[in-house]
Amino acid sequence: MGKAIQSGDYLFKQVYDFVLNRIERREWKENEKLPSIRQLAADMNVHRLTVFKAYQLLKQHKKVYVKDKSGYYVHSNAPNHLEHLNSPIVSAYVQKNHLSEIHQNPVTFNFSQALIDPNLLPNQFLSDYVKQVFDAYPKVLSTYSTVQGDLELRQYLAQYFIHEYKTHIDTNDLLITSGSQQALHLIAQSFVKPRDTVLFERPSYSSAIDIFRAQGAHIVTVDIHQDGYDLEQVELYMKQYKPRLFYLNPTFHNPTGYTVPVENRKQLVALAELYRCLLIEDDAYHDIYFEQPPPAPIYTYDIANTVIYIRSFCKYISPGLRIAAVFCPSSLMSSLITMKSLADNGTPLLNQKIFLHYFSSLRLQQHLEKLRIALHIRKEIMEAELAVTDWKWTSPKGGLNLWVQVPDNISPELLLAKSIEQSISFVPGQICDPLRQLPSWIRLSYSYINEKTLKEGLKRFIDVAQSFSN
Amino acid sequence: MGKAIQSGDYLFKQVYDFVLNRIERREWKENEKLPSIRQLAADMNVHRLTVFKAYQLLKQHKKVYVKDKSGYYVHSNAPNHLEHLNSPIVSAYVQKNHLSEIHQNPVTFNFSQALIDPNLLPNQFLSDYVKQVFDAYPKVLSTYSTVQGDLELRQYLAQYFIHEYKTHIDTNDLLITSGSQQALHLIAQSFVKPRDTVLFERPSYSSAIDIFRAQGAHIVTVDIHQDGYDLEQVELYMKQYKPRLFYLNPTFHNPTGYTVPVENRKQLVALAELYRCLLIEDDAYHDIYFEQPPPAPIYTYDIANTVIYIRSFCKYISPGLRIAAVFCPSSLMSSLITMKSLADNGTPLLNQKIFLHYFSSLRLQQHLEKLRIALHIRKEIMEAELAVTDWKWTSPKGGLNLWVQVPDNISPELLLAKSIEQSISFVPGQICDPLRQLPSWIRLSYSYINEKTLKEGLKRFIDVAQSFSN
Repeated sequence: MGKAIQSGDYLFKQVYDFVLNRIERREWKENEKLPSIRQLAADMNVHRLTVFKAYQLLKQHKKVYVKDKSGYYVHSNAPNHLEHLNSPIVSAYVQKNHLSEIHQNPVTFNFSQALIDPNLLPNQFLSDYVKQVFDAYPKVLSTYSTVQGDLELRQYLAQYFIHEYKTHIDTNDLLITSGSQQALHLIAQSFVKPRDTVLFERPSYSSAIDIFRAQGAHIVTVDIHQDGYDLEQVELYMKQYKPRLFYLNPTFHNPTGYTVPVENRKQLVALAELYRCLLIEDDAYHDIYFEQPPPAPIYTYDIANTVIYIRSFCKYISPGLRIAAVFCPSSLMSSLITMKSLADNGTPLLNQKIFLHYFSSLRLQQHLEKLRIALHIRKEIMEAELAVTDWKWTSPKGGLNLWVQVPDNISPELLLAKSIEQSISFVPGQICDPLRQLPSWIRLSYSYINEKTLKEGLKRFIDVAQSFSN
Repeated sequence: MGKAIQSGDYLFKQVYDFVLNRIERREWKENEKLPSIRQLAADMNVHRLTVFKAYQLLKQHKKVYVKDKSGYYVHSNAPNHLEHLNSPIVSAYVQKNHLSEIHQNPVTFNFSQALIDPNLLPNQFLSDYVKQVFDAYPKVLSTYSTVQGDLELRQYLAQYFIHEYKTHIDTNDLLITSGSQQALHLIAQSFVKPRDTVLFERPSYSSAIDIFRAQGAHIVTVDIHQDGYDLEQVELYMKQYKPRLFYLNPTFHNPTGYTVPVENRKQLVALAELYRCLLIEDDAYHDIYFEQPPPAPIYTYDIANTVIYIRSFCKYISPGLRIAAVFCPSSLMSSLITMKSLADNGTPLLNQKIFLHYFSSLRLQQHLEKLRIALHIRKEIMEAELAVTDWKWTSPKGGLNLWVQVPDNISPELLLAKSIEQSISFVPGQICDPLRQLPSWIRLSYSYINEKTLKEGLKRFIDVAQSFSN
């Protein structure tokens, strides 16, 4: 690539317009195959990912369609004198959800979804057991939950937390949400307005970045290390910026896999209490440990109502139900409840009752133990396959992901475009970075595909990466 | 009440502080009963509703608790030197959800919930039939839906709409949401920013008012009449304000029960197309007709992608599932999908599959016919009971509500406070008015409670109203 490569939104639009013009002027006719991504990128002297994005948007706008997994064709759409009907009547104020867009690619070797393989879940048991729920609650399908969530479920969860961590939780301090994504979104909408400063770890959970940006937050980052946070840096930022909140993922952190040690947790809470910065603790992978359970959640060290704790159990029990619990100081709870009432007026009662019954069953513990072993094996398979490269990572003690550093000459964005053509996906590090840098990191999930496909996919992926850097 | 009655947020705070001080100074001791709402209102010369709201907030803040349905008692809380821990660490940016707050009162005679009585739904059939869903989809609990919604469900709904209304809908133009409330919230977040003007009917659906206000919309109102909208007024406002959208409920309108005639619908669409104002058609009660089906939805008259159509079937099939379908022009769909991905990343697959199976079952039609008859009867009972008064209403041809005009000397807000003490609730007209006036109107739902309780509750309610106005 001799000439300088330009990038960015300007070029994306150029590519989009270029293709659209050809289609509208019928230079490219209905059902004709578009140039390959590689070819057009070369012709227009842009990144392949830029062409890829333009093609995807044209597909969304129904100007082109996909066939054979890697070919784009001109749509047989209405003729272009009705073109104006396809331009939006209003422009939308919607930011992107980067992670979601990557997930929308249907690929065989899926290293982008930090989800549990459905085949690792006890599906037969779940199906049989769920019928008992309908017998126990004959009107569950005709009844709405309260906005805050089913009382029986909240009582059970309160008891569970008290038993596990020996700190008091009141039933009224729990809110049931339709998954942890919703919990984050409600918190962002309740407590963050444009130009408020929030602290984020770097790297962090991509969807959380998008959610807080969508609220107009100014994000300031704190690096996360294997031994936790640089607390001097945290204190400096809390003094300087007076952030509304600090969003964190201190247990089997997504994407790094780090777990913040106890002492660091306690000092962080003390700082948050001192500088009155709300901590949003997102604990998605708490039970997915390989050798021993992780330290107690940060909220258990809090004595000044400084922490909102989000716990989703559902991912490794029955992810399709979408149930999470939010433990929120009572002074803030009414705001979250109001926001939840506007958002959807309460999580379906059915899902809450089903979850309650699984969660309280004996079978669950057995399942979790088997699941940990299976995931541990998959992690080791991934590490074994990657051992032939010179890539670097810290082996996580739990969770679903490897956070891998690739050599400088590999651009994760270009690697992604090329990988998708080979039916492989992963998450480029930039997407996990609030500062949109981290040009040499990638997140690979080992949890979603089976052992055989994992091995095959990783071999293929390594090939793609190596051909790329030649 | 000789002195002038003050009202508003200032007094609310006074009452709250007054009670809190008494508690903190231990003038009112732990577990001691607070003055009745009526007594304190008289003592402090404020509306009873103001005291009621203050007591409710104290309850939320765990300063007081409720016993015996009508007594408030001082909470045995931590002593007040820890008071600062109960003051919010951050103030929230959350507006109210007025309707939701009324619904939070547990009452026996519930005329405020525009919901179907669970006893009118075929619960046994639903419970038995749902087990087949788990057999048909063994991994439904381990699998996520796509963000846009289950393809099979969207395909079925597309076919249903095409068959019913003879106009084309593409599967890709449908989005599945977790109920119509969520659909509204996603639309408001996608297309409305602070100070945008939106048109609303007057009166309108209370939660929609709260949702759009929460986005900072400037709401301009258009009266809805039995014969539709004043189209000259609509055109004037569209020219003058260039509103982003017009939120409407033209079939068995909530709360008035009016149904906008065909000719008026067509002309409205023409205006919307001309002035490029998006129409948001909320069609919640379409199938709840008493004699004949209503006219086809407004979107069927649209040829320029001007309408977003929200249809929730679930209310009268299995409301606990929370499923709605949104038909959205393709140029706007990607914005809604992105917003949905941020909000909760997709409606649970389980709920969608269960809904699909009910919706496509033969039993459903039988059920709907019986339901219409039952609701028609309840409407007539309500109208018969109210006939002893001099209150006025237009008898609706479908839907769940009566919209009733009471004499000038009855304040619906005060009537509500008094009614709640008698275990009765309803919706004061102000809550349904974007301009927060309509001082003589109330919404009474006949759908939620059984015939006997309906009669008893209405008699009691009429007594309360009559004692009030003496």
